[in-house]
Amino acid sequence: MSLETETLEALGRARAASRTLALCPGLQKNRALGALAAMLRDERGAILAANAGDLERARALGMAGALVERLTLNDARIEAMARGVEEVAALPDPVGEVIASWRRPNGLEISQVRVPIGVIAIIYESRPNVTVDAGVLGLKAGNAVVLRGGKEALSSNAFLAGLIARALEGAGIARDALSFVGNPDREVIQILKRHPEAIDLIIPRGGKALKEALAGSAVPLLPHFDGLCHTYVDRAADLKMAEEICFNAKCSRPSVCNAMETLLVHREAAPRFLPPLAARMQRAGVELRGCERTRAIVPDVKAADDTDWDTEFLDLILAVRVVDSLDEALAHIARHGSGLADAIVTGDREAALRFQHEVDSATVYVNASTRFTDGFEFGFGAETGISTNRLHARGPMGLRELTIYKYLINGNGQVRN
Amino acid sequence: MSLETETLEALGRARAASRTLALCPGLQKNRALGALAAMLRDERGAILAANAGDLERARALGMAGALVERLTLNDARIEAMARGVEEVAALPDPVGEVIASWRRPNGLEISQVRVPIGVIAIIYESRPNVTVDAGVLGLKAGNAVVLRGGKEALSSNAFLAGLIARALEGAGIARDALSFVGNPDREVIQILKRHPEAIDLIIPRGGKALKEALAGSAVPLLPHFDGLCHTYVDRAADLKMAEEICFNAKCSRPSVCNAMETLLVHREAAPRFLPPLAARMQRAGVELRGCERTRAIVPDVKAADDTDWDTEFLDLILAVRVVDSLDEALAHIARHGSGLADAIVTGDREAALRFQHEVDSATVYVNASTRFTDGFEFGFGAETGISTNRLHARGPMGLRELTIYKYLINGNGQVRN
Repeated sequence: MSLETETLEALGRARAASRTLALCPGLQKNRALGALAAMLRDERGAILAANAGDLERARALGMAGALVERLTLNDARIEAMARGVEEVAALPDPVGEVIASWRRPNGLEISQVRVPIGVIAIIYESRPNVTVDAGVLGLKAGNAVVLRGGKEALSSNAFLAGLIARALEGAGIARDALSFVGNPDREVIQILKRHPEAIDLIIPRGGKALKEALAGSAVPLLPHFDGLCHTYVDRAADLKMAEEICFNAKCSRPSVCNAMETLLVHREAAPRFLPPLAARMQRAGVELRGCERTRAIVPDVKAADDTDWDTEFLDLILAVRVVDSLDEALAHIARHGSGLADAIVTGDREAALRFQHEVDSATVYVNASTRFTDGFEFGFGAETGISTNRLHARGPMGLRELTIYKYLINGNGQVRN
Repeated sequence: MSLETETLEALGRARAASRTLALCPGLQKNRALGALAAMLRDERGAILAANAGDLERARALGMAGALVERLTLNDARIEAMARGVEEVAALPDPVGEVIASWRRPNGLEISQVRVPIGVIAIIYESRPNVTVDAGVLGLKAGNAVVLRGGKEALSSNAFLAGLIARALEGAGIARDALSFVGNPDREVIQILKRHPEAIDLIIPRGGKALKEALAGSAVPLLPHFDGLCHTYVDRAADLKMAEEICFNAKCSRPSVCNAMETLLVHREAAPRFLPPLAARMQRAGVELRGCERTRAIVPDVKAADDTDWDTEFLDLILAVRVVDSLDEALAHIARHGSGLADAIVTGDREAALRFQHEVDSATVYVNASTRFTDGFEFGFGAETGISTNRLHARGPMGLRELTIYKYLINGNGQVRN
């Protein structure tokens, strides 16, 4: 059987499962999630063993440190997955929620009711927790989910997907509601993107290669791609607060999309702010790349070149630029930002309001770290990705972002003139 | 200058205009809409003259009657456009609406605020009122709008778009916020679909040719394509009500996507329901194509063939099938429907609830005509199209459907662990 036939058959089973799952009561879905949380804890040893296999192969292939870090599961991360599943179970069922309802002058009663999207394919790279996070959110929202993880995490992902399928079956839900595509052939992605009749949505989480592989997709995409995040330290900033926020935004997990890549500092704040921050960053191993004015204040900083303002480093590297004004910061972000997460640190309420009004990004922070752009941190229980789209969903995606709606209209014989 | 360069330059001006329009106060946008409504009335003679030119060319080219009807403007339709513009002006500004807000345990305040999508291209066929309806909704929602109407309506559309641009300018809004693409070359569509950096969304309203022209679009689509609508007359239907609803759904405007194409009748209702309905339909010039059981009851009906259940006639033709049960009706709709609008006529509350729960269509009616699937009829003031998508928007699209959101997060120094 060809790869295309095999894939389409799996998708056909997913479609059939999606029809029954769409009508499945919330209690039954939650029973599956409860069982899954328990299994994640009970099977911790086996999960770590599957992950150890992936890690061993990754190290043998010389994978970079930041990527190995993403791939790694440990007790804390497994417990976080289990808690995430419980949090998702505790959330209200989005399916059937009445979003709005109104009555027309002709007596028609219209209600807008949340329903699942249908069949959602999630294509992701090395983080195996995505298998569980994205899987349970998709299922709780009533969708059949097709998971296609990175080949580096194949053992971990396959094991975790197997647990989900077991949990579904135990709750009397068709296990085809969760399909895991184990074949690492990149052709699978080409097959998926060609079949809008079989898949309603693809959520790709990855870098440039994945973006290019999905170009021209006939299936709608909710991409989770670039994150070039800025922090702007205003002249009215509390500089100690600014230092903590910047250090966190850069150093707490540099390999992820919500980490800060460029720091903008108002010229009046720069002389006092930059020296201690630079020293602390450098002690933490961060390479700073500064504009001329930054280097005039902190001489041991490397000179930034023009490409640095447009680079998502995903590593311990930070571009630093001194600006004359809030306007200049806004213009820099409009030109170089990816529209994912940007922050201002300021005590000036006017500056904060202007920044939030004018920065056109999915998440715009005042006096907090961009690292909060995350489904867990937003209270969504888990996340399927952080949408860099301007359609359907933007920023961290939880349950509602995996649904659509239909209108129910009740009349008593109305006809249109 | 090449067509591509010319188009991209216009899109660049639209992008620049979208940035200022996104921050434009609601009052200023409404001033433009008020002026437009007045101009539509004042310039009625000139609008009809422009339309007469289009109609003359259409008749000379032998255009089909239903299409000429779509293309035609008259006093009533111009007045309806003007009233639509006033209704849109009276609607609350969607931009800035706080959709949700909450506080996290760490003290972060998160609010989800509605913002424009950006630059929206609307590609539509012969109905010139779309120029105004779609244009004003897009603009009121804060988007720059690029309009690409059908070549049959070129004079009407160009004149109407000119009025909108004048109204914008009069209110101090960049007239580039509305671009009208007058070049009838179909290559324009190919250019638009290749430039996701220049356009955030394409809303195509049209038939198969347009669908094919947009295949592989790199720009996200909110398509308004097929409408294969069913009415199911249940055994517990009020047959007089059912007759009125069916007659309206088929005959009030057969050329549009929300017209009924297939009638399903429960076998217990068929013997009393079909003969008078068939007689009335036939008097109105409707060609009926029935299943065997339909023809056993109404012998002068033509036999339906298998393709009729999958055909959007957009004309005075109706496929008729007798079914044994609600289940059979649901299965027929699931298999043949387009997911746009389907109706049940019944006095049985259980049957009505099941129909609305299980039919997976954008609009699901109980005891009303499918013809209400329309932005005006839903109270949206106007409409940009009726989405046949399962992402972002489904069914009639009003103001909110032309927006997305961003998250504003306010903290006092929070960092992530």
